[in-house]
Amino acid sequence: MEKLRRGTVKFTAPPQILAHGCTVSKKESQGPLGSLFDQVQEDEYFGQDNWEKAESQFQAAAINICLNRAGIKGSDLDGAVGGDLLNQCTATSFAIKDLKAPFLGVYGACSTIAESLITAAALVDGGYGERVLASAGSHFCSAEKQFRTPLEYGSQRPPSAQWTVTGAGAVLIGKTGGKARITAATVGTIVDMGIKDANHMGGAMAPAFADTIAAHLRGVGARPIDYDAIFSGDLGVIGIDLAQELLRREEIDISSVHHDCGEMIFDRKSQDVHAGGSGCGCAASVLCAHVLPMLESGQWKRVLFCATGALLSPTTVLQGESIPCIAHAVELRGPAEPAEPTESNEQAG
Amino acid sequence: MEKLRRGTVKFTAPPQILAHGCTVSKKESQGPLGSLFDQVQEDEYFGQDNWEKAESQFQAAAINICLNRAGIKGSDLDGAVGGDLLNQCTATSFAIKDLKAPFLGVYGACSTIAESLITAAALVDGGYGERVLASAGSHFCSAEKQFRTPLEYGSQRPPSAQWTVTGAGAVLIGKTGGKARITAATVGTIVDMGIKDANHMGGAMAPAFADTIAAHLRGVGARPIDYDAIFSGDLGVIGIDLAQELLRREEIDISSVHHDCGEMIFDRKSQDVHAGGSGCGCAASVLCAHVLPMLESGQWKRVLFCATGALLSPTTVLQGESIPCIAHAVELRGPAEPAEPTESNEQAG
Repeated sequence: MEKLRRGTVKFTAPPQILAHGCTVSKKESQGPLGSLFDQVQEDEYFGQDNWEKAESQFQAAAINICLNRAGIKGSDLDGAVGGDLLNQCTATSFAIKDLKAPFLGVYGACSTIAESLITAAALVDGGYGERVLASAGSHFCSAEKQFRTPLEYGSQRPPSAQWTVTGAGAVLIGKTGGKARITAATVGTIVDMGIKDANHMGGAMAPAFADTIAAHLRGVGARPIDYDAIFSGDLGVIGIDLAQELLRREEIDISSVHHDCGEMIFDRKSQDVHAGGSGCGCAASVLCAHVLPMLESGQWKRVLFCATGALLSPTTVLQGESIPCIAHAVELRGPAEPAEPTESNEQAG
Repeated sequence: MEKLRRGTVKFTAPPQILAHGCTVSKKESQGPLGSLFDQVQEDEYFGQDNWEKAESQFQAAAINICLNRAGIKGSDLDGAVGGDLLNQCTATSFAIKDLKAPFLGVYGACSTIAESLITAAALVDGGYGERVLASAGSHFCSAEKQFRTPLEYGSQRPPSAQWTVTGAGAVLIGKTGGKARITAATVGTIVDMGIKDANHMGGAMAPAFADTIAAHLRGVGARPIDYDAIFSGDLGVIGIDLAQELLRREEIDISSVHHDCGEMIFDRKSQDVHAGGSGCGCAASVLCAHVLPMLESGQWKRVLFCATGALLSPTTVLQGESIPCIAHAVELRGPAEPAEPTESNEQAG
């Protein structure tokens, strides 16, 4: 790992993505990416007796798919890094505990999968171990119950609201043997522009996304068009426009390569999700179902994946506090090619 | 960083502790360590209008002391790693946001300061940056309100209950220039022995502590008497006995060097705290007020600091789930001496 600028690093020997897995529920399977997810669990309870345990099961299932594909067990892992939206991150603790793997719990709200990836990549790169898992997940029903109102209330949702994805993603990072690679990353800084509406997350998170994208591009010396795609986590339709506008003010135009996991995962016309999807499981499942396969197949060569998080709690909202937001960026590349341009060429470009 | 065993690493070029700071409230200042804390804020509201904001202020104050001692500002930090017990880790997010530093939120319940230290040390060691902050804090009133019952209920606490410390600690890690150093670490594995009583945290956490201590000693090839002190985070009086007994079954006797931050921070006879102190702020403030100064002054040469966490939530408890626990160990040494025994000598010893 080599520091390029404050918060931004380049991996000289890029940690590799050895395997990945994702699980989603019925609604996600009916969206535009439906056929791409590894597993669809139509029962939102996942055979459990409450939503919190179901949320754990979704993350455990994604992890199992990932480990099975890599042909390893939990006891082969040097570590696991993961988190979720539930109070005290219990969905992840309960999903991880049977793995018997050294565990670091992280919290970055809906940016968690990016934080997990960066931490796992830094550990592998630094010599901590050979195989470290990164995971994150969320559940619509447990999230609504915890952050807004129980579903049984039948509350109306404003048009700016987003729909928490029921699903999870898990990525196994190792030193060698993968197709996709993590070549650089930017740890985000908290940005709080004073937005207080917990049903306006896209608007709250857009400035944090713009801040991290601008920092990353400066750090690695790249332009938006150097990427096949730049992904935001879950800005939704309102946040997408705001983020692009904020970046334009810094003379950065990402519009031709910008995709948003939250905007892609549901069909807004037919699925009644208002501004789009959200939740830790949104960016995590789209990463595993769509972004990584496109890199592994060689259809894309270079992608910037920047998951976004709103660091609020129901208590801070009721106390009238604003919503601090954060975004972490992970730069991903496909299989190394002999003719791949060197870093110095790219920076000159 | 060099992997010794799964989960355990040695730092070949040990990250240094450049500065640290801690803040506690009135009750902690009246305990046996009262004179050692950097700052005492007698007002438990810390000038705020609610306990959650006060909890943020305690952590922000500890961070300010730490940065002031190092003579740097938040904008000089390459990163900050921290967490707390509040839902969605908001005490830390709100404490950190004005620093304008790249931020990784972590959650390890009361083990959080150890998780923060390990993550920050791994980042500095791996080349992420020169200066990374690690912090954690807690507040008695916000913790009781969130995890058990609001204070106004006047609930009776069973003898096994522990008293959440109102306080915080912050540690600045860098490549060079410190007195104390992080020479090794073990990332803990979740251990769940089926305990379901949220007022019996010491008992729940003792097996996780024993598991991590045994793993660390095996990993670095050391015996308990090779350390001047082995600290647990907040096992309290019940957990201390259980942990020592569990380790004895593995033929490891730590009794002559074992200290527990939760047992030390309050006077159990006069302060009515039942089994001792707890909370992220317990291990964090005792580390900064007592452990690090003893190393920096040369009175101790080698310490194993192992903070313990119970990964429960009020929801999982009410749903009848058991309490998954974790403990992370950080091996600390005082200033390097020319005559210091080499690693290979120690392992042979």
